[in-house]
Amino acid sequence: MTSPVINSDNSVTFRIEAPKAGEVQVKGDWEANKGEGRLTKDKNGVWSYTTPVLPSEMYTYRFIIDGVAGIDPTNPFTCRDVGSIFSLFYINNGCADYYQVHEVPHGTVTTTWYHSNLLDLNRRLTVYTPPYYEKSNRSYPVFYLLHGSGGDETAWLELGRVVRILDNLIAEGKAEPMIVVMPNGNCSKEAAPGETSENLNFRPVMTNAIPGSYKNGKYEKSFPEIVNFIDSRYKTISEKNSRALAGLSMGGMHTLIISANYPDIFGYVGLFSAGVNFSQVNMQIPEYADLDAKLAAFSKTGYKLYWISVGNEDPLYPNNKELMARMDKVGLKYIFRESTRGHLWVNWREYMLQFVPMLFK
Amino acid sequence: MTSPVINSDNSVTFRIEAPKAGEVQVKGDWEANKGEGRLTKDKNGVWSYTTPVLPSEMYTYRFIIDGVAGIDPTNPFTCRDVGSIFSLFYINNGCADYYQVHEVPHGTVTTTWYHSNLLDLNRRLTVYTPPYYEKSNRSYPVFYLLHGSGGDETAWLELGRVVRILDNLIAEGKAEPMIVVMPNGNCSKEAAPGETSENLNFRPVMTNAIPGSYKNGKYEKSFPEIVNFIDSRYKTISEKNSRALAGLSMGGMHTLIISANYPDIFGYVGLFSAGVNFSQVNMQIPEYADLDAKLAAFSKTGYKLYWISVGNEDPLYPNNKELMARMDKVGLKYIFRESTRGHLWVNWREYMLQFVPMLFK
Repeated sequence: MTSPVINSDNSVTFRIEAPKAGEVQVKGDWEANKGEGRLTKDKNGVWSYTTPVLPSEMYTYRFIIDGVAGIDPTNPFTCRDVGSIFSLFYINNGCADYYQVHEVPHGTVTTTWYHSNLLDLNRRLTVYTPPYYEKSNRSYPVFYLLHGSGGDETAWLELGRVVRILDNLIAEGKAEPMIVVMPNGNCSKEAAPGETSENLNFRPVMTNAIPGSYKNGKYEKSFPEIVNFIDSRYKTISEKNSRALAGLSMGGMHTLIISANYPDIFGYVGLFSAGVNFSQVNMQIPEYADLDAKLAAFSKTGYKLYWISVGNEDPLYPNNKELMARMDKVGLKYIFRESTRGHLWVNWREYMLQFVPMLFK
Repeated sequence: MTSPVINSDNSVTFRIEAPKAGEVQVKGDWEANKGEGRLTKDKNGVWSYTTPVLPSEMYTYRFIIDGVAGIDPTNPFTCRDVGSIFSLFYINNGCADYYQVHEVPHGTVTTTWYHSNLLDLNRRLTVYTPPYYEKSNRSYPVFYLLHGSGGDETAWLELGRVVRILDNLIAEGKAEPMIVVMPNGNCSKEAAPGETSENLNFRPVMTNAIPGSYKNGKYEKSFPEIVNFIDSRYKTISEKNSRALAGLSMGGMHTLIISANYPDIFGYVGLFSAGVNFSQVNMQIPEYADLDAKLAAFSKTGYKLYWISVGNEDPLYPNNKELMARMDKVGLKYIFRESTRGHLWVNWREYMLQFVPMLFK
């Protein structure tokens, strides 16, 4: 038995053999029917459900059998989002074509460690180098890409499909060849859950903060250590307008603060559904203080792009509108792309498809 | 609710909230009670079971709820073995200490692509470089490490815990700093399931053969392309006695055939529960033909180590004994380490702890 099956009309049929179950539901992240469906049982004890026609996307889902959530047992393809494992599938002929592997030249993905003096930790990060990087004599621009709360240095790989997006956009000539650096934004942690010396004793949960880690300004302050490490290790173009910084949610807040505090490092800035609810932050911390003055100073640095996007159903939508009003007051020019939907990876992947082609042109 | 809980006596307690379930079992890969346990339900609908005391190891398990197998919903740590996802935990104070992350210098892990002219494919492989590799001016020996049937270039990372084993052995001074190369042994495939241009259309199953891929001699014939790629990309010591080749199961058969056909490439050879059931192979294929003569020739090449291990409960035990009888006849000297247990990752990780310290001394 195969599950899920992508039907020719782009509806999707789920199946599970569970003769003793009393109730089986599917819960996914598609918009139709709010991603919910009730499976029905046939005489052989096989439950099934077919979704409405779905637009192209990477989708994740779980089955809920008599109240217990789990992956689809016949689908070997999964991803972890914070502390939960989801099954996944793609609907083709649209944005999800960029999230899959094609017969194009492939970049290299490296997982390596840098030392942070400020954080007093060896810390892991992920680096994408574009096709032909190893053999080339040229230097490359660098895009620093930050994850959200609950995420880590693997999130943009697994859920963001960054490697495929870059390989495919570069192959189509829509993006410049670039290095992409994905650090870990939880500044009290060495690496992703299970990859630190805490091993399995730290379990990720969506609490919106790793204790002692977030909103204390330390990660933002330490960020030049990462830039210096990358400039020393890789063939980079070490100048403001050959560096981009973007992040989603917590990483959007990090991006705002890092770029404002270090106005000469990044020439391209992207806020993806940025977590800019300043009422939750101690704005007296030096890195957060005097934000308007810092944004005013940034506006005079000859930057190339300040890009903001947020979904119109995102709880952070009003916070982003307030931030843009402050930017308007101090004369910081930005591009705003309002999207549909909420605080979701479907949006962040699509923002990448819009943002990456604008870099380093 | 947390599950599993490692108790102070190294028994393990599993828990799951499933008030509507009629039967909950756990099935894992520990030896006590054959890895099986029946959970019992308390008045709140929480099922639990405590194992006997377990020896140090990395263990994988699934829950079976009313006949449906799935991961532990409260445990975020999983690994894929062929087409199934398992939850995992460690028992400390023994071999599993080597399978976890400690505060030692960490190597770098790279996922990159080489082109095979013989196989006419771009193919993915995984490379471990030891701590300080990037900054050093020296060259390093290289260990080529092959997976089994159903596996791919991620298997030794995920299930074999190679990165932690190497980091920890090197930190203790028990292993030489070395490069470890983990290619994909399914010669009709570009990469692991989900990472090829077939994307999710190819699903791994334990059929003991990817069609058109295994036992045709092509992968073995093409292997020098991988060695040449690594020698051109990395700082290697490019000589026989600075190269090792080992593999498990199908990869053990690959190791036997590659080293026999290219006797001047590898000075260290390791067969881990090797899949040397020659009755399943067309021994007329040039790479497999004349094996005794090739082994006799290998015995005269000045190699450093030929190491064989297999568990005394492994169905391949008699085949490995037969192979060693052939080696005895032609005068090929080897070290045989008979282990307990069967055709299992617990053995292959332990073989690594024995084999790696013998390399490049």
